[in-house]
Amino acid sequence: MMINLKNNITIETINGTLKDLTTDEEHLKDHIGERVQIHGSIYKIRKMSGFSFVLLRTKRRIVQCIYSEEFSEFAIDLLEEESSIVLTADVIGEERSKLGFDLRMITVTSLSEPEAVAPMVINNKCVNTSLENLLNYRPITLRNEKERAIFKLQEGICNAFRIYLMKNKFTEIHTPKIVYAGAEGGANIFRLDYFGKDAYLAQSPQFYKQMMVGVYERVYEIAPVFRAEKHDTSRHLNEYTSVDFEMGYIESFEDIMEMETGMIRFALEYLMENYQEEIEILKVKIPTVSEIPVIKFLEAKELIAQTYKREIRDYEDFEPEEEKLLHELMYQMTGSEFVFVTHYPSKKRPFYAMEDKNNREETLSFDLLFRGLEITTGGQRIHNYQEQVMKMQSKGMIVEHFESYLMMHKYGMPPHGGLGLGLERFTSRLLNQDNVRLATLFPRDINRLTP
Amino acid sequence: MMINLKNNITIETINGTLKDLTTDEEHLKDHIGERVQIHGSIYKIRKMSGFSFVLLRTKRRIVQCIYSEEFSEFAIDLLEEESSIVLTADVIGEERSKLGFDLRMITVTSLSEPEAVAPMVINNKCVNTSLENLLNYRPITLRNEKERAIFKLQEGICNAFRIYLMKNKFTEIHTPKIVYAGAEGGANIFRLDYFGKDAYLAQSPQFYKQMMVGVYERVYEIAPVFRAEKHDTSRHLNEYTSVDFEMGYIESFEDIMEMETGMIRFALEYLMENYQEEIEILKVKIPTVSEIPVIKFLEAKELIAQTYKREIRDYEDFEPEEEKLLHELMYQMTGSEFVFVTHYPSKKRPFYAMEDKNNREETLSFDLLFRGLEITTGGQRIHNYQEQVMKMQSKGMIVEHFESYLMMHKYGMPPHGGLGLGLERFTSRLLNQDNVRLATLFPRDINRLTP
Repeated sequence: MMINLKNNITIETINGTLKDLTTDEEHLKDHIGERVQIHGSIYKIRKMSGFSFVLLRTKRRIVQCIYSEEFSEFAIDLLEEESSIVLTADVIGEERSKLGFDLRMITVTSLSEPEAVAPMVINNKCVNTSLENLLNYRPITLRNEKERAIFKLQEGICNAFRIYLMKNKFTEIHTPKIVYAGAEGGANIFRLDYFGKDAYLAQSPQFYKQMMVGVYERVYEIAPVFRAEKHDTSRHLNEYTSVDFEMGYIESFEDIMEMETGMIRFALEYLMENYQEEIEILKVKIPTVSEIPVIKFLEAKELIAQTYKREIRDYEDFEPEEEKLLHELMYQMTGSEFVFVTHYPSKKRPFYAMEDKNNREETLSFDLLFRGLEITTGGQRIHNYQEQVMKMQSKGMIVEHFESYLMMHKYGMPPHGGLGLGLERFTSRLLNQDNVRLATLFPRDINRLTP
Repeated sequence: MMINLKNNITIETINGTLKDLTTDEEHLKDHIGERVQIHGSIYKIRKMSGFSFVLLRTKRRIVQCIYSEEFSEFAIDLLEEESSIVLTADVIGEERSKLGFDLRMITVTSLSEPEAVAPMVINNKCVNTSLENLLNYRPITLRNEKERAIFKLQEGICNAFRIYLMKNKFTEIHTPKIVYAGAEGGANIFRLDYFGKDAYLAQSPQFYKQMMVGVYERVYEIAPVFRAEKHDTSRHLNEYTSVDFEMGYIESFEDIMEMETGMIRFALEYLMENYQEEIEILKVKIPTVSEIPVIKFLEAKELIAQTYKREIRDYEDFEPEEEKLLHELMYQMTGSEFVFVTHYPSKKRPFYAMEDKNNREETLSFDLLFRGLEITTGGQRIHNYQEQVMKMQSKGMIVEHFESYLMMHKYGMPPHGGLGLGLERFTSRLLNQDNVRLATLFPRDINRLTP
């Protein structure tokens, strides 16, 4: 568009309407019997006798095209896997095809060709290589149909969580990741130089989401968090996406568990409705969530010890093996693939965790295990100023360092609590993967900083 | 709930239904003539002769309550500002009240009281204090009606952007913020020690969003980015929320500008529909976006120089004053509060920017200015491997360091481009604030690391 200015100068304008000359993959089925233009990357060429299958990778689908000298107006040798093309094609109804039609390729314009052939086969059912290679070559291995379906599904999980939280009147917040102090304590924190001062990378948005409860009552954030864990296990990442929510005016920490149960149930239903294609590609068994069993930490420890004739070696934490056994047990007994474990020992929970008034050794807190892996930690927080200060002192903390954190307690806070859920862990358990890195686009671990 | 297990053990369960005993603020008007329970924080107590106004701060609204010895069954002195209460009240229709009703306070249960009175008045129309204090006391100053409306509106902007991008088939991605190399070059990058290796905080998700175009064609991410800028200006933040999108199969960089124009128009309409309360509290003048004028960088420089009789001192960048004058000029000439500036000098754009084939001194790139401030940088990227390698070499870069970045070019990439928009800058210009910190929950600048 052009507009005329007073002084006879004309100036071009942009009006926000994108001229899209090609047909969207989703609408192809409305064009059966017609000639269309479509774009995409050539995923796979399979030469048969007398014709060829050409699989075109579009935004979300792999579209089957047919090349034949009978109708195609170009030579098949001009096509190359991983080149980007615009294709003119006839949409032919075909019941045997997955999408209900085939595309007969008429003409092709190549927009871009690869410089080299990929060093591994990425266009089979799955990428058949080591975890190491799969991750090293992420920019191309993610082009595999199955690999990219994982992260499309992850998008769905995120969307669903947001929709559910918004429906429940949570306000989205953006809190800083460069912080003056760690919220979770311990040594697993990344330090950086901030213009000559020491600063840290946020282990969680804990302090900030609590502060924001004083402002909006209910808040959430889905954002990266950072843990300088030295463990190199299948469960740990040094950077992950944390789904955090925090809510005021709770009557007990069970309110938080209720909210999470509703959120997860909604998410799983949302995936069934909106991500059926990825569910099929990945052959995911989506669990149903009706009621989630709740068990106290110590009771769970004892139950596992008795059932499996194991010795309890650690009264403050689960061993990974115990989490798996607890899942096995709960699944057998209740059919649930989720289990809430509550009342973790005060010693192992951070300074902001509220203790059980009836037993100060235990906190009003919980973890959620999904198929034997902890995916959430949550609980009620201390809201009273004096109580919080005393708790910090009893932990040997320097109260003055937390002046801005304590401001909310000092000037009034409602009873509140919340949780953090690891998006990659949730995705990974949903897909029954054996390593959380498989549910992380570009994982960071003690040995991996690239790509 | 309880469920019975086989061996006669019963176990409690959580079923995801939160028992909410109090009425939601939004539904109060449906209860006129009834007695309800509601919770919130006491925002303000105003004693009048014979009765008192008590303003209750709820999730999104300030609800007016009336205290009178005539009907209230407690003493007003028991109430304290910033305490958290559960209130039983009669909902009385009242045309003069903003919400159409008043709440007659009957009984009150206090859940939590502040330890001290806030060191500044936070319950007037706005917080009347210095920027310094406003930010130092964020946990409480954000409780002010106007302050919190800013970030509620920001939530709306984010929601709108997401909805628009999803409608346009962009896939949401989560990319790492700890990276092995900076995407934007220059010295303004935070370094950290990553298990004995040098790592950096991402200045943008540039590399990763490009890689993901090879996977999903269109991707977006709304996440923090980090710039170690030493500038202490009203426009700079050291950590901000970047709205990034990247799209394949573009015909020119104008496609990206079209997409952004559509996105911004949608967002402004979305705010008008869903955030009217905040728009009123903040007295925001929402601009209409029909067509956005486009001007080349050098032509803009010359136009400003001629119109305002200024000397051009810098042929590679705008001075902040020039951005303001360009806005003034464009607004006079076209009525638009947005202007696209295109064809920035190649020297000033990063190594991945595509040059104009007709004039290698210029890039196929753009900035979007909103009311005189740059809020977006975008453009078409180089997709050809050889072209990208040569460009890097010509910039004196060590190509081997970017092996994983170049993988996508090597194994095939469609023509593509994208942009990054600063969420805080966008919010700040929308509200006509004079400092971007005012649109940042917990700003980070060269002097500020807390709260």
